[in-house]
Order: sequence, then C-alpha cells, then structure tokens
Amino acid sequence: MSAKPHLASLVRLGTRNSETRTICRRCVYKNTRLFSTGRIIRQENSDDSSPVESTAARTANALPTTVRELLLTKNDIKDQAAVKGWIQTIRKQKGVCFATVTDGSTAQTVQVVMTPEQGSALTIGAAAKITGSWQESPVKKAQQKELLAADVKLLAESDPGTYPLQKKSHTFEYLRTIPHLRLRSSTSRSILQLRSTALSQISTYFTTNSFAQVQPPILTSSDCEGAGEVFAVTASDRKPFFTDPVYLTVSSQLHLEAMALAMSKVWCMSPTFRAEKSDTARHLNEFYMLEAEIAFVEDGIEEVMNVVEGVVKSIVHGLVNNEVLKKDLLTRRSDDIGLLEPKQLEKRWDGIINMPWRRITYTQAIEALKNAVKRGEEYKARAASAMNPNYKGTHEVTWDQGADFKFPVEWGMNLQSEHEKYLAHIVGNGAPVFVTDYPKQLKPFYMLPNESNSRDEEGRETVACFDLLLPQVGEIVGGSMREHRYEMLEGEMKRRGMSEESIKQLGWYLELRKWGCAPLGGFGIGFDRLLAYLAGVENIRETVAFPRWFDRCLC
Amino acid sequence: MSAKPHLASLVRLGTRNSETRTICRRCVYKNTRLFSTGRIIRQENSDDSSPVESTAARTANALPTTVRELLLTKNDIKDQAAVKGWIQTIRKQKGVCFATVTDGSTAQTVQVVMTPEQGSALTIGAAAKITGSWQESPVKKAQQKELLAADVKLLAESDPGTYPLQKKSHTFEYLRTIPHLRLRSSTSRSILQLRSTALSQISTYFTTNSFAQVQPPILTSSDCEGAGEVFAVTASDRKPFFTDPVYLTVSSQLHLEAMALAMSKVWCMSPTFRAEKSDTARHLNEFYMLEAEIAFVEDGIEEVMNVVEGVVKSIVHGLVNNEVLKKDLLTRRSDDIGLLEPKQLEKRWDGIINMPWRRITYTQAIEALKNAVKRGEEYKARAASAMNPNYKGTHEVTWDQGADFKFPVEWGMNLQSEHEKYLAHIVGNGAPVFVTDYPKQLKPFYMLPNESNSRDEEGRETVACFDLLLPQVGEIVGGSMREHRYEMLEGEMKRRGMSEESIKQLGWYLELRKWGCAPLGGFGIGFDRLLAYLAGVENIRETVAFPRWFDRCLC
Repeated sequence: MSAKPHLASLVRLGTRNSETRTICRRCVYKNTRLFSTGRIIRQENSDDSSPVESTAARTANALPTTVRELLLTKNDIKDQAAVKGWIQTIRKQKGVCFATVTDGSTAQTVQVVMTPEQGSALTIGAAAKITGSWQESPVKKAQQKELLAADVKLLAESDPGTYPLQKKSHTFEYLRTIPHLRLRSSTSRSILQLRSTALSQISTYFTTNSFAQVQPPILTSSDCEGAGEVFAVTASDRKPFFTDPVYLTVSSQLHLEAMALAMSKVWCMSPTFRAEKSDTARHLNEFYMLEAEIAFVEDGIEEVMNVVEGVVKSIVHGLVNNEVLKKDLLTRRSDDIGLLEPKQLEKRWDGIINMPWRRITYTQAIEALKNAVKRGEEYKARAASAMNPNYKGTHEVTWDQGADFKFPVEWGMNLQSEHEKYLAHIVGNGAPVFVTDYPKQLKPFYMLPNESNSRDEEGRETVACFDLLLPQVGEIVGGSMREHRYEMLEGEMKRRGMSEESIKQLGWYLELRKWGCAPLGGFGIGFDRLLAYLAGVENIRETVAFPRWFDRCLC
Repeated sequence: MSAKPHLASLVRLGTRNSETRTICRRCVYKNTRLFSTGRIIRQENSDDSSPVESTAARTANALPTTVRELLLTKNDIKDQAAVKGWIQTIRKQKGVCFATVTDGSTAQTVQVVMTPEQGSALTIGAAAKITGSWQESPVKKAQQKELLAADVKLLAESDPGTYPLQKKSHTFEYLRTIPHLRLRSSTSRSILQLRSTALSQISTYFTTNSFAQVQPPILTSSDCEGAGEVFAVTASDRKPFFTDPVYLTVSSQLHLEAMALAMSKVWCMSPTFRAEKSDTARHLNEFYMLEAEIAFVEDGIEEVMNVVEGVVKSIVHGLVNNEVLKKDLLTRRSDDIGLLEPKQLEKRWDGIINMPWRRITYTQAIEALKNAVKRGEEYKARAASAMNPNYKGTHEVTWDQGADFKFPVEWGMNLQSEHEKYLAHIVGNGAPVFVTDYPKQLKPFYMLPNESNSRDEEGRETVACFDLLLPQVGEIVGGSMREHRYEMLEGEMKRRGMSEESIKQLGWYLELRKWGCAPLGGFGIGFDRLLAYLAGVENIRETVAFPRWFDRCLC
C-alpha cells in the first residue's frame, strides 16, 4: 500500500461488495476504495468506455457466452462480461490472484484477475462463473485482454490432491487409460473442436453441392467386402435376434448405391466396424467413414475425385479460416507430447489447399517406383566405387537420391506403405496424390473394369478406381466407378468364387442393376485418419473421444 | 402435317441432327425444317431470348444440374439446359412424346417434350440424360416450364415388364418388402430429402449456438438405463472380442456428459439400438437420436427446454422455407397411401413454429387429466338422464366434452399414450407441450431431484426433468438435469438396488462428479419419430431407408 506503483501496470479490481482495489502487477502497490453499492462501481467505470463499446456491451444478445467468443471480442465490455469454465491454472499472490479459465470451446484460456479473497476457493479443475470487465491486459505478451473479476462464483469443487490432470504433462498412453477425463486435456479439446468444425464444413459442402445426407443402416445382413472381419450382433443372451445372422456394417457403400439410384447424389458420415486384432496407430475397431455415392457420373473417376478433392479442401479451408481453432492446433503446450511441429503442420494444410493434387495411374506409379529403385542402385554403385566422396560406407539412400525399398516393385503388387509414402513425398511434392486404375485382381468385385482401349500396352486388366495418398501417412481414401451392368457384375462374383449363398444374400444389390442403373461411382474417406493428419497426431486413437481398439473398450 | 395448328400450342422440337420440328400439342399439326448443323438451331433460337437470360444460360457454372435446381429456374435456358434422371411416366403420341423425369433431388418431376423417335427407347424407370431448352409450358396447369429436348441419351434400360414400381399405387407394406427399390417411390424421396434438410438445419443450429458436434461410441461396456434390452456384440464366431462384454449403445447420454464436462456444450446425431421385440408403428431396433448435453446450466430445465424448442423450430423453419421440399411433402400422389391430409400437415408445422409451447408440471397434468375425467363423467351422467338431446345412447365422450380414459388417473402413474395425446390436444391446443417434474420413482437414477421447496404441497418427490408431447403422437423428447453430486448419485444408485458390479462398471461416470462437475442437463430427441410427425406418416419405418424391426433386417 505504501509502494509507488508502475503506472502502466495498474489494475483496478472490482468486487460486488462495497470496495474496489487498485493493484500494481509489477510490485506490491495496493489501494482500496470504498463505495456504498456495487452500482456505483459500474457508473464510475462506465466513464472510461466509448459510447460504441458500452452500447455493444449492454446489448444482452451481443454478450459473448463462451471462452471462444470472449477471446474474439476486441472491444472492452464493462462489468457484464462473464465466463463459465474450469480453472486450468491458478496463481495466488499477496495482493492479487490470477487464474486461466477454459470451457472447451477452444483449448485457449481467458486470464482472470481477482482479489485473493475471490480466488480463495478456486483450485485446478474446479468449475466457476466469473463476471466482470473484459479489458486490455497490461501485460500484452501473454494475452491481449483479460477479465477483471467483479464476482466469482464457485460452481463445483475439484480436489487438487486427487485430480488426475493436475500434473502439467501427460503421455498420450496415460491419458488413454482415463478416456472420460482425457477429454479435458488441451490436445483433446483442440482435436474435438477440429472434428466438430470438419463435420460442420462437410455438411455445408455437400448441401451446397446438392447432395442429400442419408443415414444407411449399421445393422446389416450383407457384407460389403465379402471377406472382412466383422462383428456379429445378437440378443444380450448371445442368441440370434433376427432371422438371418446380423453384423455391424464394414462400409455403407452397398446401401449408398441403392440410395444414389433413388436420389442421384448422397453422402453419409457413418460409424463403421472391423473386428481386426490390429494394434497399430492406424487402426480402430470402431471408426467413422465419410462416404459418398454419385449416380449419372459422366466423366468416370475424374468426376468422383473432384468431389473428394472438393470436400477435403473445404474441411481445411474451414480450419485455416477459423483463427481460434488454427491457434489451438498450432500451439504447443507442456501437456502436448508427440505432436507434429507447428511449421510441419501448416505445411500439411498448405499442401492440401494451395498445391495441385497430381493424378497418376498405378502403372505410372510402378514406373516411378522402379526408376527410384534404379536411381538408388546407381547411387549405391557410385558410392561403392568410391567415386562419391559423400559416401559414408552405408547403403542408406535418401528419397532425393532414389529409393531402397524393402518390398520389390512389380506391376500387379499391392502398394506397400513405403511405396505410398514415397509417391506422396516425391510425386505429390507435399500435396496429396491420386493413384488410379489399379490391377483388377487387387480390388473388390464391384469395381468397374476399364475398357480394353484404356488398358496398358501389355493388355493388363485394370479397374476405374483410385486411392488418395497423403504425405507421411499413405492411403486415406478409396473410390471407384461401380460395375453397373447386371450380367458383368454377376459374372465377376462367380469368377471370384463367391458362394451361391453369398450371391443370393447380395441379390438385392445385383437387382439394383436391373432397372435404370445409371453409371455410378463413389468413395470412402477414413475420417479419423484424416483428422489425425490435420491435427498432426500420429495415432488415430487421439482423434476419438472413446477409442475402441485391440481388446480395449473402456467406458 | 396438313392440319391447321392452334398457335398458342405450337412447340418447336429441337434435335442434335439437322432438323427441327414444330408440332401442335392440341392437334396433329407437324412441320419439319432442315438445318445444316445443330449450331444453327442455337443461333436461331437465341433470337427469342433476352440478353440477361442468355447470359445466365451461358455461364456454365450457373446451369442447374439437378431437377430441383431446374424447377427453381424461372428464366428460360436456351439449348443448354440438361436433366439427368429416371423416367417416371411416359406418354407416346403420334407426333410428340411426353415424359416426366426425376432425379430424387425432389419428388417432383420435369416434363420433357420429345419427338417420338427421341422417346422411342425410353421406358418407366430407365435412366436418361436429356439436353435442350428450358421454356414456358403452353399448358400451365400441370407445370410452369418444361424441357424441350434437343438430345436424348438413354443411360440405362428398365424392363417395364419386370420393374416392381411400374404400378402407380403401392401400399407401404408392400414397399417395405423391397427396401432397396422402395427408395425410388415419391414418398420415400420426399422423406429422405426431409431427413437431409433436417440434418443440415440441425448442424447449422448447433454451430450457430456454439455447440460442438461429437461422435460418442456405438460399442460400449456401459449400459445407460441399467435395464434396457441391449444387443450384444461379439466376433463373427460369437466368441467375445473384447475383454469385457460389449453392447450396442442404447443412449449416448453418459458419454455425452463426459464430453460436456470437457467442452461445455455438445451434441450428436447417433445411431441407437434397442433389442425390443415390439412390432409397433413407433419402434425400431435401430434408430437415430439427436442428443445434446450442456454444462454450466444456470436456469435448470428451462434452459434445456429452450434448446429443444430452438432446434425443433429451426428444423421446421428449414422445411417451410424450402419451397420445393414443402411442395414435395404436401403433394398427394397416386402412390401415396396412408399419408396425413395436406391441411392437417401444415397445421402440425404451424403449431410448432407459430404457436406458444406450454410448459406444465406433471402434477398440473394429472390435475388436468382428473378434471377431464370428471367432466367426462358429468357429461355421461347428463346424457344418461336424457337431459341432453344430443345423447345417442352410447357412452362415447369427445375430448371437448371431457375424457373417458382406459387407464385410471393417479399421481405417481406413468402417463399412458391416451393421456399424452389428450394433453397435447387440449393443453397444447395443436402445439407441442412440455410436461415437467415427474415423480422420482418413474425416472432413471441419474436425474436431479427437485429441491424440497419445489415439491408439491404433499411433499412428494419429483425430479428436474421434462418430456415433450406432440399432438396425435405423444412423447418424442426426454430430458433432465443430471445429478452432479458424487455422494447423492452413488447413494441413489445403491438405493435403487444396482449391483456392486453395475456400480463399478459405471465408476467412470460417477467419477465425472469428482472434479469440477458443473450443473448439467441434456435431452434426447427420437429423430425418426420427429420426421414421421413432420412428414405425416404413421409408421416410423417409412422414415428410414433400411428399417430394422421385429425380426426384419433386410439388405
């Protein structure tokens, strides 16, 4: 009280009681003034504000209600600003108490300045409502504006001794053991908001482009791929519930085709299930697929790929145009372990929206891979003959010099992860790459074969399909034109050795071809994988609130 | 060719070949003129069009691509209009052929006028692309505008001898036996477009109101209601796949609470499953729930009900502002059997958006029901004593006179369907009615008890909850505040006799109450039931593309 304050750091703390207190944030200066009622405080404070600001602040509807909205509010708000959220950090000093508060509308926080009395009951994780004035922060490095508390109301306590998120830094592995609380971490909040923003963008994209959103069934007596690992569904006593055996869908494609043949352009965001015992960073037993199906396709897979490119770009546009979300995803906090570097992450987004997406055929991809192997061997030979002073005696080849793949490259093989990543890196140059027209034997029975005149010079059979490869990640989208001719489809099913029983089960799918089956095509995007790529997390388990994988079904 | 034409009915048919033909739609007049190329036709036709129209038509991006967009195009489009769709009806006359074409973007059709040669290959259900001019129809009664074909391209045949939708009129029961083709009926198309429009509106409503869209798990080891009939999930050989028994979710509420306690305001549109053997018009084994959960609720259920009212109204606003969809739903076609009268349907929509939604307590509802019974008895007594000349000797009581319920009315009972319908009809007066504060013993363990001072005079215990009742239909939404205090929740679970095992399984849910559990509440809307109400169909099976009910899991 006796110290001389630093004028630029003076802060006036309002309370709902009969006093205000002015403190200095750089020293111990403190000055308390008494007022008869809380109303006088408001009157005095309102002298400072411009008419425009005070009007805005007093229009009840215009008042921000979330942390996100408050952070976007550039004007001052006198007295009537409020934030409801959880205490993320709290620092109690002699004359003043600082807390950061978040409500999950963003991973960012609002700084609240209080009296020690006001902050006395607050602990990390506690829920509170704080009312006061939204104003410039004297310390602009940390935040532009802050909330000066007039009233602080504790809504729910949090015992700091037991709260599992008390510690500043947690591994993803630890957090996954407490999925119900993990959601409260900054990384989780950022990714959940990314998911929400992406869902909203997708809805807008498809509505604008005259697609109908549909909800295909989850329980199905048809099995799309014919060989997938499926989950069975029974009554709770494990006895059959329906007449036929019923499974959880592995893809909505077959049902979407029926809908596209009634509605022309349809899309869905549907949960999908695979009973795989894969314990990898790319697999979940329950995941979301963004699928679309288009009838009356005139330009073959080109037209279908345009939709894939359109919707993925629109998601990323939605992300980069959302300043709060962008900052959420680019901020590295102490509890963020294992996230991609912000610069690398921005490069990913940039590759999607600002760079051309190349489209090459599988045959061209094989050529590119073979060339890479050849250049790699030449490099190694040159190095081995000691002509290359850079040669260090190892046989490591960087992708700029060529490639040294583990799996040999042959036309007809499945592209391995290393091949996909090479193609995305070198051919895509940081942008996604479409690889089209795969060999027929690598793909499912329902894909439309390319006409003989589009076969390669050796007459090898390919289908009108595509995969989308992302840098560092590989395949994330698959799509194709569908065989729309009844006899050809039935013939292919038999040729592949599908049983009479299976063909009969898919009779309804075959029958779609009998009447007015316009040329149709579609695709499926692994939504969680795309989110992991856009958020810069390695494991898709981080993108899902309650992930189910390899024996794990918590909560 | 020799007849004298009716000038107002002359139509010029363009072709891509070297001729145009002028025919009269009221008589057999026909005149063919030769041109050297198709281009000349365009030049000649363009003389008729205003500069504005032809500019619009020639901006490639502005060309309508769906039937819906074409029907909304008020201007003429010379030559470059196109429609891709299925032939719904076709009428082949001597000098001209008329067809109606739909693509499912609306249940409405575009009328196409062709030469008999152009229409020769077309049959009902066939897929075709027709290019030509979009112009005023000489016969305005049926349609304002029509497409005059220059080029007709058959894309996929349809054998009229076998096509199951050839007949004009089908019962819903028959159509349900062919779900993959049923989607092509006008009623199905209308309802699927309603579903799509509603989904898009919901996304916009929640985005605007700062809710995050989340995707809670479908596979769960927790059972929300504690007693529901659940589906079990196993590997395809019916052996356990996960360590713990896993079920399909019956409600996302518990998981949504965990998310609301991280994100404040969340919503989801999630498939939900009940293994009930109910063969009623209101039950499906797989259905969609629109659920939302809100933390930091300050005004109790009032605040939660405001969100319910907001989102339902926004869906109906989206419907009535969508002229094409509105017409789809109000048009009665020959294949529409069992749909509500258009006037009645408009009254439903009007009740939702233009009338006040009353909110009454359960106790008030019981009073109203008791009064109705009393008035009904008095009416019957008067009638029996022959004082009433209108009495016909029966004991039927209309709701305007009182009520004669099958189930006796007592405080503490579950409201039966007849009670709910009466309340919605008389108390709601055609608008939805909220009934709040039900007896505690009727509701699940997680609902927040009302404080003693809000109990009724007899001190009976109620919970802070609500049901939304719709006229003619009854309950469609349920919601409540949640018990947010650890000890109270645990105590209630024990008081209800939940096993140690069950309580342990819900340990994570209990634990949400330990740290910063702000007051929270939420609701679930039966989305398919709401759509059935808005579409005017009695059975919710009509609102779902591939309905699963009582032993039926087709496709």
